[in-house]
Amino acid sequence: MALVVQKYGGTSVGSLERIRIVAQHIKETSEKGNKVVAIVSAMAGETDKLIKMAKELSERPSEREMDLLLSSGERISSALVAIRLNAIGAKAVAMTGRQCGIVTDEVHTKARIKAIDAENIMKHLNNGEIVIVAGFQGISQTTGDVTTLGRGGSDTTAVAIAAALKADVCEIYTDVDGIFTADPRIVKNARKLDKISYSEMMELASLGAKVLQIRSVEFGMKYEVPIMVLSSFTFNPGTLVTKEDKDMEKIVVSGIAQDKNQARLKINKVEDKPGVAAKIFDKIAANNINVDMIVQNVSDDGKTTDISFTVQRDEADKAFDVLKRLADELKAGEVSINKDVAKVSVVGVGMRSHPGVAAKMFETLARENINIRAISTSEIKISCLIDEKYTELAVRSLHEAFGLDKE
Amino acid sequence: MALVVQKYGGTSVGSLERIRIVAQHIKETSEKGNKVVAIVSAMAGETDKLIKMAKELSERPSEREMDLLLSSGERISSALVAIRLNAIGAKAVAMTGRQCGIVTDEVHTKARIKAIDAENIMKHLNNGEIVIVAGFQGISQTTGDVTTLGRGGSDTTAVAIAAALKADVCEIYTDVDGIFTADPRIVKNARKLDKISYSEMMELASLGAKVLQIRSVEFGMKYEVPIMVLSSFTFNPGTLVTKEDKDMEKIVVSGIAQDKNQARLKINKVEDKPGVAAKIFDKIAANNINVDMIVQNVSDDGKTTDISFTVQRDEADKAFDVLKRLADELKAGEVSINKDVAKVSVVGVGMRSHPGVAAKMFETLARENINIRAISTSEIKISCLIDEKYTELAVRSLHEAFGLDKE
Repeated sequence: MALVVQKYGGTSVGSLERIRIVAQHIKETSEKGNKVVAIVSAMAGETDKLIKMAKELSERPSEREMDLLLSSGERISSALVAIRLNAIGAKAVAMTGRQCGIVTDEVHTKARIKAIDAENIMKHLNNGEIVIVAGFQGISQTTGDVTTLGRGGSDTTAVAIAAALKADVCEIYTDVDGIFTADPRIVKNARKLDKISYSEMMELASLGAKVLQIRSVEFGMKYEVPIMVLSSFTFNPGTLVTKEDKDMEKIVVSGIAQDKNQARLKINKVEDKPGVAAKIFDKIAANNINVDMIVQNVSDDGKTTDISFTVQRDEADKAFDVLKRLADELKAGEVSINKDVAKVSVVGVGMRSHPGVAAKMFETLARENINIRAISTSEIKISCLIDEKYTELAVRSLHEAFGLDKE
Repeated sequence: MALVVQKYGGTSVGSLERIRIVAQHIKETSEKGNKVVAIVSAMAGETDKLIKMAKELSERPSEREMDLLLSSGERISSALVAIRLNAIGAKAVAMTGRQCGIVTDEVHTKARIKAIDAENIMKHLNNGEIVIVAGFQGISQTTGDVTTLGRGGSDTTAVAIAAALKADVCEIYTDVDGIFTADPRIVKNARKLDKISYSEMMELASLGAKVLQIRSVEFGMKYEVPIMVLSSFTFNPGTLVTKEDKDMEKIVVSGIAQDKNQARLKINKVEDKPGVAAKIFDKIAANNINVDMIVQNVSDDGKTTDISFTVQRDEADKAFDVLKRLADELKAGEVSINKDVAKVSVVGVGMRSHPGVAAKMFETLARENINIRAISTSEIKISCLIDEKYTELAVRSLHEAFGLDKE
């Protein structure tokens, strides 16, 4: 008997018909003798509908209230899945983030899980019940207010619960068959990977492959939770996200990712002395905006410098406001914003022992006449910021250049 | 400076346009120097939509999960109203039943409030914030599960919070101008009452006048909370529900009510000995079904009796099942059910000192050839069960007979 944690994304529970299919699959998993906890997302489209209403009422809806608003979608779907399970003869209870003991920090709309007290879940499991959990939410450790974990937060709920319960596996059901060497909508001959390491998955997730939320992979890596990504439409074998092994190291590049949720901000003529850049990025961080690539140019006069950096596009306006206020304060030059950029990346643990990946990437982009506007690298990935319009061309060229279409 | 509790029903917050109007009114109330707590229902139609989904997934959805499901509607509307208030420059926070310290018993779908710890609300009020509360919900004192207070439960949330805060007034905003001598959709010349006693309002509420949930009036009476019922569409002066005074006693009948949510159950040939009736009604009560009118006939043989009683129509099938099982156990005769009945009632505190109200009611119904199938009375009301098809005729005739169209 195993303890199986499952997570069903928004399209997996996107209609009453889908909920029937998912409930049946949960029931069958339970009937094989497993203890089952299933985390569900809001029904596809619900969260966007709620966001749209809030935006019609307010240009910048208060984040505390957004969390209360958006957490409702998961509560509805978890209740419906449990209701269906009970209707088909399985004993099930629906539970909210609070009831699952999920305690987070106070950063509304992208809170981080601080602790999980799984006692309540265990009680129900030991009582022979299937536990259906409203994903994406918790409550703040200090205020008791409802918090949400950001887009894709239900993945993190699932992996964190799997870690807390020491589950045998965490199955992430989605609408694709697993992790691919590139987005199959862009690259026709992208291949499904059978296995991928946590660190590669983390890079892919942070680079815009939307299959898993990055925090969930971090949790998985930290607590060594085997994560299986698979489809609730086909129930085919998926991709196992797991510890690195020798086979993985043989493969130089595992996948190509692209991310259009990018914007580039630039502040001109900043005084070129120690502490100024720190001041800028401190302020940005204090506003809970994540900065990604940073480029600093020394300007002609030698006394001032231009600083560019990228943020998520949906945070760009907020970052722009912060930066404008800072520019006044620092007596810097003008502040500009460019939302027509995208990031393409190549990822692979094999890079560590195979030099030349960066060179091959730059050559490939150059051959297609694609300008590189910024570069960032890690041990196992290389990312380039390019003009958005070249995204698909870049991904396809890189996929072919690194031979990812071949087994 | 007063402490004002307001409650906005489903039609009052039934669209984004309505939410804008309501937020504006809340803001204005606050700007007059009042501390304001506003309780909101789910947007009109939302609760029914959720119920419909649950019923498509299950013939009898589990009540614990129904509560989690249905509590979402109020969370959404409370968040949206608070978001709107913040957008128009008022400081507001949205709070759930749990965050307002509303603790209930464990009876899912119609829980009763056991206690309110208003500390959290007071903290926000003292912080200069308007508090928007998701109505209709609390959490169970023993399990911590989400509970709901039954249809109209947001009224009870409002009055209970008003009592806990010792508010100066509890304003119940709805889509009608107040309490009328009869349903204006049935009686064209029904008049709005300026004032009505708690006890009359309680009878009217329990008799099917859907303006206020009966539990809310009980709370109001117990803690002497002045309740003002008024319209969020006209903002005209409404009806004050308050302590009985001498003026009220002069009026014999204050209003006529009708209730079509009625069904009559009958169990034949029950052994006519002490304890049998008790056994039946114990069992019905144990299933959380409320029994209203009871009629017991002695049958011809003198050894057995027939027992009839009425329940709410939406609980009739459940009661029927319970009764059938009991009939087997008690070796009684057949069990029958009639859903085509309705209850009409006349209500007034003046009845106490004016005899002859019952006689006049029976005469009036007889004149219209309406058979009375059961009768129940209290100090201040007389109810008759009749065939449903005569409901409107009965209400109009009684309204005229008791001169309610005249000032």
